[in-house]
Amino acid sequence: MKAAVKLKPAPKSTEVRTVPAPTPGPNDVLIRVKVSSICGTDVHIYDWDAWAEARIKVPLIQGHEFAGYIEKVGSEVSSLKRDDYVSAEGHIACGRCYMCRTGNAHVCKNVSILGIDRDGAFAEFIRVPASNVIVNDPDLPPELATMQDPLGNAVYTVTNANVPAKTVAIFGLGPIGLMAVALCRAMAAARVIAIGHKNTYRMQLAKTVGAHEVLESNDTLVDRINDLTGGDGVDEVLEMSGSEQALRQAIQILRPAGGIHVLGIYAKPVTIPISDLVTKGAAMYGIHGRLMYKTWAQMGGLLKSGNVNLRPLLTHTFPLDRYDEAMGVMRSGNCGKVAFPMES
Amino acid sequence: MKAAVKLKPAPKSTEVRTVPAPTPGPNDVLIRVKVSSICGTDVHIYDWDAWAEARIKVPLIQGHEFAGYIEKVGSEVSSLKRDDYVSAEGHIACGRCYMCRTGNAHVCKNVSILGIDRDGAFAEFIRVPASNVIVNDPDLPPELATMQDPLGNAVYTVTNANVPAKTVAIFGLGPIGLMAVALCRAMAAARVIAIGHKNTYRMQLAKTVGAHEVLESNDTLVDRINDLTGGDGVDEVLEMSGSEQALRQAIQILRPAGGIHVLGIYAKPVTIPISDLVTKGAAMYGIHGRLMYKTWAQMGGLLKSGNVNLRPLLTHTFPLDRYDEAMGVMRSGNCGKVAFPMES
Amino acid sequence: MKAAVKLKPAPKSTEVRTVPAPTPGPNDVLIRVKVSSICGTDVHIYDWDAWAEARIKVPLIQGHEFAGYIEKVGSEVSSLKRDDYVSAEGHIACGRCYMCRTGNAHVCKNVSILGIDRDGAFAEFIRVPASNVIVNDPDLPPELATMQDPLGNAVYTVTNANVPAKTVAIFGLGPIGLMAVALCRAMAAARVIAIGHKNTYRMQLAKTVGAHEVLESNDTLVDRINDLTGGDGVDEVLEMSGSEQALRQAIQILRPAGGIHVLGIYAKPVTIPISDLVTKGAAMYGIHGRLMYKTWAQMGGLLKSGNVNLRPLLTHTFPLDRYDEAMGVMRSGNCGKVAFPMES
Amino acid sequence: MKAAVKLKPAPKSTEVRTVPAPTPGPNDVLIRVKVSSICGTDVHIYDWDAWAEARIKVPLIQGHEFAGYIEKVGSEVSSLKRDDYVSAEGHIACGRCYMCRTGNAHVCKNVSILGIDRDGAFAEFIRVPASNVIVNDPDLPPELATMQDPLGNAVYTVTNANVPAKTVAIFGLGPIGLMAVALCRAMAAARVIAIGHKNTYRMQLAKTVGAHEVLESNDTLVDRINDLTGGDGVDEVLEMSGSEQALRQAIQILRPAGGIHVLGIYAKPVTIPISDLVTKGAAMYGIHGRLMYKTWAQMGGLLKSGNVNLRPLLTHTFPLDRYDEAMGVMRSGNCGKVAFPMES
Repeated sequence: MKAAVKLKPAPKSTEVRTVPAPTPGPNDVLIRVKVSSICGTDVHIYDWDAWAEARIKVPLIQGHEFAGYIEKVGSEVSSLKRDDYVSAEGHIACGRCYMCRTGNAHVCKNVSILGIDRDGAFAEFIRVPASNVIVNDPDLPPELATMQDPLGNAVYTVTNANVPAKTVAIFGLGPIGLMAVALCRAMAAARVIAIGHKNTYRMQLAKTVGAHEVLESNDTLVDRINDLTGGDGVDEVLEMSGSEQALRQAIQILRPAGGIHVLGIYAKPVTIPISDLVTKGAAMYGIHGRLMYKTWAQMGGLLKSGNVNLRPLLTHTFPLDRYDEAMGVMRSGNCGKVAFPMES
Repeated sequence: MKAAVKLKPAPKSTEVRTVPAPTPGPNDVLIRVKVSSICGTDVHIYDWDAWAEARIKVPLIQGHEFAGYIEKVGSEVSSLKRDDYVSAEGHIACGRCYMCRTGNAHVCKNVSILGIDRDGAFAEFIRVPASNVIVNDPDLPPELATMQDPLGNAVYTVTNANVPAKTVAIFGLGPIGLMAVALCRAMAAARVIAIGHKNTYRMQLAKTVGAHEVLESNDTLVDRINDLTGGDGVDEVLEMSGSEQALRQAIQILRPAGGIHVLGIYAKPVTIPISDLVTKGAAMYGIHGRLMYKTWAQMGGLLKSGNVNLRPLLTHTFPLDRYDEAMGVMRSGNCGKVAFPMES
Repeated sequence: MKAAVKLKPAPKSTEVRTVPAPTPGPNDVLIRVKVSSICGTDVHIYDWDAWAEARIKVPLIQGHEFAGYIEKVGSEVSSLKRDDYVSAEGHIACGRCYMCRTGNAHVCKNVSILGIDRDGAFAEFIRVPASNVIVNDPDLPPELATMQDPLGNAVYTVTNANVPAKTVAIFGLGPIGLMAVALCRAMAAARVIAIGHKNTYRMQLAKTVGAHEVLESNDTLVDRINDLTGGDGVDEVLEMSGSEQALRQAIQILRPAGGIHVLGIYAKPVTIPISDLVTKGAAMYGIHGRLMYKTWAQMGGLLKSGNVNLRPLLTHTFPLDRYDEAMGVMRSGNCGKVAFPMES
Repeated sequence: MKAAVKLKPAPKSTEVRTVPAPTPGPNDVLIRVKVSSICGTDVHIYDWDAWAEARIKVPLIQGHEFAGYIEKVGSEVSSLKRDDYVSAEGHIACGRCYMCRTGNAHVCKNVSILGIDRDGAFAEFIRVPASNVIVNDPDLPPELATMQDPLGNAVYTVTNANVPAKTVAIFGLGPIGLMAVALCRAMAAARVIAIGHKNTYRMQLAKTVGAHEVLESNDTLVDRINDLTGGDGVDEVLEMSGSEQALRQAIQILRPAGGIHVLGIYAKPVTIPISDLVTKGAAMYGIHGRLMYKTWAQMGGLLKSGNVNLRPLLTHTFPLDRYDEAMGVMRSGNCGKVAFPMES
């Protein structure tokens, strides 16, 4: 099969080439990829940063966002069949640890991730355990279905914040932040305040998918949000930027008894005024992955509602052969989601 | 002032006449009513049914749904001022009982209700304790603001069911049921199934405000909902009809671990298969009034979101002088909300 | 192996005889039973009532409560090993349905239950899927470990009611009701009111394991509880009796905004004043089985705390050969838990 | 009346002298103090640290922990009467702001605190708004009833962490930390790990009130807790020390999906690895004051249960005349709670 293979432990060593297609084990399925899409994590691996250096073994086919059709099912798989239209949760949990056994498989310590710890979706075929497969609604087109992995992060964050009727500030307008904007609007947040940083392309996209306000993250931000909220502050903050300054501002703009929902990852420990969080009686929630599989069920329901304006966020598509070009667009930031529709 | 006064403990004894305007006590405000609207309870009092006979003392000015402007504030009131644009929570709680002190003032045992236990809003002026006054968003027109009391019932029910992403069945398409339909759509319920009974006017209104499906409540209902949900049943039921049959059907169509949210009141004890609720691991929630004042804050946020399609539900207006005619329309059921805009 | 085998679709057709020991499949373990114990359900099967007639296929080895040691592990099982000290969740869920995939395996529609739908624990060996095995704390003696299945029902009910600091009434003093009494005391319920019916043996046991009050369920019950609670009613009711009258009394004695947690199963539909539940803003929760496996984790923690006074509830032991006699004691009601320690 | 009056904006300027007793306003009560007790905050004021300098106006009678009897009720007070046995919530909320109106009066922005912003309880009489008065259980002795203000902090923290069945680590063994130890044991926490720092007196008290383990906070702490928990970490951390190092250790010892409940206040912003909190999918909750008045109701229920071992925590009593000596004991740290029983 055709696949984009990261060959060496170095930047930009990916080549699109022909490799043997994987063989599904007894509890696996083999999926014919229809569309895959690029996550920010894929750029980190492509660029071979310090995190990638520590985690990734080459050669590797990257990619954990995709939609496709089942090509073959393993001998023990009875709940799926050839040609089912599917996507998959990329976190393969062990199923046996304390976290897995008590409803928290999303933080399984023995997790293995598609496209990171094992071969992924930037290829014609991908092998996935049947347990991780999600059957898609036939009305959901593949180019939106491929976005469900990051959309799931956004759905988990937004549902954790219980946004209907609330004033919500969203820091960070990468694809997940933009999805969160669309979700908050879909679920009747009172006011959605999207906060970007020097990226007019994405700030415009935030407007397109429904932000009531789009603000630049700078020194006047706290004052402007105080003005917008009559001095009360916002009910919930979704911190999706990974910026220490954003986290400090989040604590400042939060109303008492509010919540900060942190999906962002910080390059190093952050210095923050926790006493202010305490005297406000507020809370900070770490959000990791997606609940398995409650978040997927919620995501299906939200997409079915017709309220989620997701399509504007798919801004670029490339054939897999133009892999480097696609990564370049991702790296530029002048994009929403970047996808690889497959010819097959 | 002009007021519609229920004069005798008998049906249809209401006369629109001139009476002295009330005088606010030190902790009260006097409100100049701009619009009031009719609740189903008002029809019960107007018709003088058994419940009214047991509860109501005449003479009484009915009405607990309204919007208006503050005319005068009591000597101890500092948080409100003349001309503030307001509505009010109709349940006047004691503030001292165990329920009031632990966040459950909506089920205060010493409650006194506007237009039921004391004079209400079908008049030019109404006296209300300052504690119960809600300052309205200036962008919310009075003819919608008057609907907030019943909308609050719907908001409490819908938020209790946490509807985003869920399949929701709503039994009973009176004004509150119709509001619940609009709210479920506003908050991205996956599928909103509105269930009426021989009232095509209201079933059409359910469609107008966004129901995905509108079904007639009859013997085939359970089968049809099984078909619609692929045999899974619905995630949540909102029981707003007060019908014993509806409650039984609710248990049948509910999926395991789902919830039934009961706002309806039943004329007598109901016979229901509780064992089925138990083996489903499902729950049944009694919904009474509105949380004071969390639900009002949520309602303000939902209205501000722009997602709630409320206007089609105000179907009739009458001058207060045509009180009997307005009550007749309410009794016919061929209406949504019926309001009295005041001339002043 | 030796096993008690229900031979015919008729009462009292159980014989203790020698049968082939089961062979574990690749994902199973074979467990050497150290102690098993009798559930009320086992008496229904033994007596061959209407429910048993409809559900049970003979021949069957009954029994789903037990503790023992792993004898053999299937070829695919890596998380368990020979001689591990274990018990097991008796509900074998499919793992693929919507309920299983969203944290509600306890209400899986495809469930198969040990000792009901497949051979159980009244034998020297039992075969169980590895997924259902619970490794016991070595400090927990087998004669208490065998009680974990019903204790899990009690833990789920009590944790659903969040009893610390609350006044709790418990209807029904069978083994699970008695366990609930002990758990409420262990978790610092303000006052535990145990309600029995004409069974002084079990009412005395309720006192032994910590009930503050033990009351007879009769016509004066509601008045007495009103007296005990200063007219406020109780915060939570645990309905474990399966009695329609108890459910009606539960609604009467409940304070506004309280909860009724129903583990009981009723022989037929019940007639109850749901309007009173609604005007109280109260809720009724169906409790089925145990959360898989959150409740087991909680149970382990509670037993480890040292606060749970469980031992007095094991009142009788019999060798498996005296099966009929043991069933007779269970049927008499003059017992707590009845267990079969195995010779091996 | 006799009162301890902080006279000057300087350390140790408190004199016990005779001053006029306060006069209750129409919505107030006057309480004859039976016992009062010293909070850590009182030491800060006594010592006149930077916080006191910024917040406190002299002359001031300090003290917000007490129990006593109502001497006189204001003209508008109907729910209380002379000789009622009472304590009081020290946070006097405005009742009108958004937080007060939505169940969050404990974080009212217009709060005024007894003994900090207005005269307090280190005197023969104290004036308190009737709304803030709590009627004590007659079985609760005054020397324990006076501890309810800090016990309320501990109850709020412990109930927020929902400790039954969980492994809980408590950082900081001041009086509130020690109360949290007793509460966790009372509510059947699986294992209570108390963590002190160089204060053997209080570490011994932690043992006395029920800690399963008492550990010294040093460099080996994380390793020792890993050993104690089989590498899993603890389910919940209660951070009551105000130490930056403790907060960092809290994140390290927490299991995935766990919670950190922070009552501590930090002298300056803290540097913490928030990414670790995020990848664990864990949460951090700021705990401020006590819920008004849900926490008080819970506290009453917990004390009534008989499970809470509170008495060992009252270690010292002094007559009010020996005020300086009492403050000295508090400052030494070789104490639990220090109280002033009044002669009257």
